Amino acid sequence: MRPTIKDVAKLSGFSISTVSLVLNNKDGEIPLVTREKVLLAARELNYRPNRLAVSLVTRRSNILGLIVPDSSNQFFARLGREIENEARRCGYSLILGNSQNDPARDTEYIQVFTDSGVDGVLLAKSDGSGTDTEGPALDYLFGNHVPFVMVDRYCGDPRVTTVMLDHFQGGYLGTKHLLALGHRRIGCVTGPRSLQTSCERVRGYKAALAEAGVPCDEALLIVGDYQIDGGYHALKPLLAQKATAVFAGNDLMAFGIYQAARELGVDIPGALSVMGFDATLYCRLVSPPLTSVFQPVEDIAREAVRQLVMRINAKDAPPPVEHKLFLPAIIPGGSAVPPHSPSPS
Amino acid sequence: MRPTIKDVAKLSGFSISTVSLVLNNKDGEIPLVTREKVLLAARELNYRPNRLAVSLVTRRSNILGLIVPDSSNQFFARLGREIENEARRCGYSLILGNSQNDPARDTEYIQVFTDSGVDGVLLAKSDGSGTDTEGPALDYLFGNHVPFVMVDRYCGDPRVTTVMLDHFQGGYLGTKHLLALGHRRIGCVTGPRSLQTSCERVRGYKAALAEAGVPCDEALLIVGDYQIDGGYHALKPLLAQKATAVFAGNDLMAFGIYQAARELGVDIPGALSVMGFDATLYCRLVSPPLTSVFQPVEDIAREAVRQLVMRINAKDAPPPVEHKLFLPAIIPGGSAVPPHSPSPS
Repeated sequence: MRPTIKDVAKLSGFSISTVSLVLNNKDGEIPLVTREKVLLAARELNYRPNRLAVSLVTRRSNILGLIVPDSSNQFFARLGREIENEARRCGYSLILGNSQNDPARDTEYIQVFTDSGVDGVLLAKSDGSGTDTEGPALDYLFGNHVPFVMVDRYCGDPRVTTVMLDHFQGGYLGTKHLLALGHRRIGCVTGPRSLQTSCERVRGYKAALAEAGVPCDEALLIVGDYQIDGGYHALKPLLAQKATAVFAGNDLMAFGIYQAARELGVDIPGALSVMGFDATLYCRLVSPPLTSVFQPVEDIAREAVRQLVMRINAKDAPPPVEHKLFLPAIIPGGSAVPPHSPSPS
Repeated sequence: MRPTIKDVAKLSGFSISTVSLVLNNKDGEIPLVTREKVLLAARELNYRPNRLAVSLVTRRSNILGLIVPDSSNQFFARLGREIENEARRCGYSLILGNSQNDPARDTEYIQVFTDSGVDGVLLAKSDGSGTDTEGPALDYLFGNHVPFVMVDRYCGDPRVTTVMLDHFQGGYLGTKHLLALGHRRIGCVTGPRSLQTSCERVRGYKAALAEAGVPCDEALLIVGDYQIDGGYHALKPLLAQKATAVFAGNDLMAFGIYQAARELGVDIPGALSVMGFDATLYCRLVSPPLTSVFQPVEDIAREAVRQLVMRINAKDAPPPVEHKLFLPAIIPGGSAVPPHSPSPS
C-alpha cells in the first residue's frame, strides 16, 4: 500500500496536522528538529505527496486527456504525438484514450479522464452512425464544467471550440490537382457520411468539378470507412464507371485501392491515378509513392492545446468560442499523372 | 467547477454528514423526506460521486495504464488495441502513455498514472541508450507497491513478471525460412543493442546459421533503430557484402529497405529477398507483399492483462513471478524467394 500522511505521522510520532504542515512546506512555526524527524520518516516510508489528493484541493493535475477514434490510424498516431509534444511544452502530461469509433466510449473516456483529475480534454469524436452521437459526451463535459476542445472534428453545437483542417479546401485542392492533370472521370471514396469532415471534403470535390465545368456524376461517389477495405471494395465499381483517377478520403483507403489494383492488374498510375489524404509516413513506402493531401498536424496540435490551456486557465470566464481552420497542401508522390488509355487488365 | 458534496449540503440545507450518508446509500436511519430532498439537490447540481475521491478510500479505480515507446509504430498500436479490448472484458478502462522512447518518460508516466489512481501498469519500456535504464521506473513501481507487468520487453530484474514473444524463436524461424530457400549470405538489421529482444533475435539468427553450417559473418549484422531510416541506410553496406537476403528487425525497417532498393534499382525479390518482423497491416500493402514474422499479439495482450489483474487482486500476497513466452510464425508475402543472380542496377 502506498504510504499516507497518517503513516508518516505514526512513524515520526507527531500529529497528522504537524506532519501536514511540514510536508506542505508550511513549516515556519515548526521547530527544526521536528521538521527533520518528519522528513526522515517520510523518506524512510518512501512517502510521496499524492497528486490525486492534492488535485482534489487545488483541482489541478497538469494532465490533459486526448480521445481519438483509432489510435492505429497513422493520422491519429501523429496527431497524438504532436499534441503530446505541445502539451509537454506547456507543462502538461498527456494521457490517451482510444474510443475504437464507439460514441459510448467517448463518454466513458471523458468520465475516466475527469474522474482521474485531468485538467481538460481534447476530443476527436468517433464516427458513430448518426450525426448527433456526440450528445451524451457534450452533455457530460458541459454538465461537469470540463474545459475541452474538439480537434479534427466539426461539431454542430455552437458552444464548442473546434480546431482542424479546412476539409473543404482539402477536397477542393485534391480534386483540382487531378483536374489540372486532365482527368474528367474522377472517383471519390469518401469517409462515413456521419462525419462532417467527410461531407466538407465532398463539397470541396464538387466545387472543384463545378469550377472546371465537369458535371458531377453521383455514380463516382462511393462511401467508405476510412479503413483499407473501404478503398479495396471501391475500385471495381469505379472502374466500371470508367474512372481514370480516384480521390481517396484517407491514405488507408488509397492503399486499399492499390491492393485491389494489383490484384486486378490495373497499373497505377498508367491506367489509374490515385490521390490520398493525410500524407502519412507510408505514402513514400508504397509503389508508386502516393500523392496525398497534407494536413499541417503540428499546427493543428499546437493550436488545439493552446485553446485548451486558455480554457483551463480561464475556467470561470471562458474565452469566446473559436473555429480554427488550417490550410492543406498537396504532397506529390508518383501516383497522380495525366490520364492514359487503360492498361489491359 | 464540479459540484461537491458540500454544494449538495448547501443547496439541500442538510449537513455534510447527512448528505454523505444519503449519497453513499447508508440511509437506513435517514427520514425519507430528507433523503428525497438531498437527492433532488444532487440531481439539480448534476452531482456525481468523484471516482477520484472514492479511489482514495477504496484504492480502486478500475483503470489500467499502458506505457509504450512509440504509439505510431503499428505493432504497439495493435498491442494497445488488444490490451484495451482485454482490459474492457475484465472490467477495466485503459489509458495510454507514449514515452517516445525516453526512459525518463517511462518514470514520468508511471507517476502520472499512479497519481491518477490507476490500479496497475503495463509497461513496454523504452529502448534507452543503456541496458539498465529501467532502474528509476522499477524503483518507483516497487517503492510505491504498484502492481505491474512488463510486456514485450525482457527485464533483468528477477522480481518482474514479463509477457512477450519468444524473440529467440522469432530470429531463428525467420532465418531458417531464408536458409531453406537457399540463401547463405543473409544480412540482419537488428533493433537497438540496448534491448534484449533485439539481442535474442540475433541469437536466434546465429543459431539457425550454425544449425545449417553457415558461418556467421559479423559484417552482415547492422544495428538499426526500428525506424524506416535504419533499414534504408542498411541496404548499401549489405549489398556491398553480397547479401542475397535481409532479415529486418521489424516491418518498418523492412519498408526502409524497400525504399532504398527502389532508389538503387534493386529488384525485390529477384535480386534481394526481404523478411520483416511483426507482420503488421502494411505488409500486404507494399509491393511485393512483405514476408514477416508474426507475433500473436492478441494472446500476448490477453496474458499480460491476466497477469496484471491477478497482481491487482492479490496485492498483499502477489502471485509468483512469471515469464510467459509466446511462439512466432511466418506469414508469407512474396518478398522471400530462392536467390537469383542480381538484376542489373
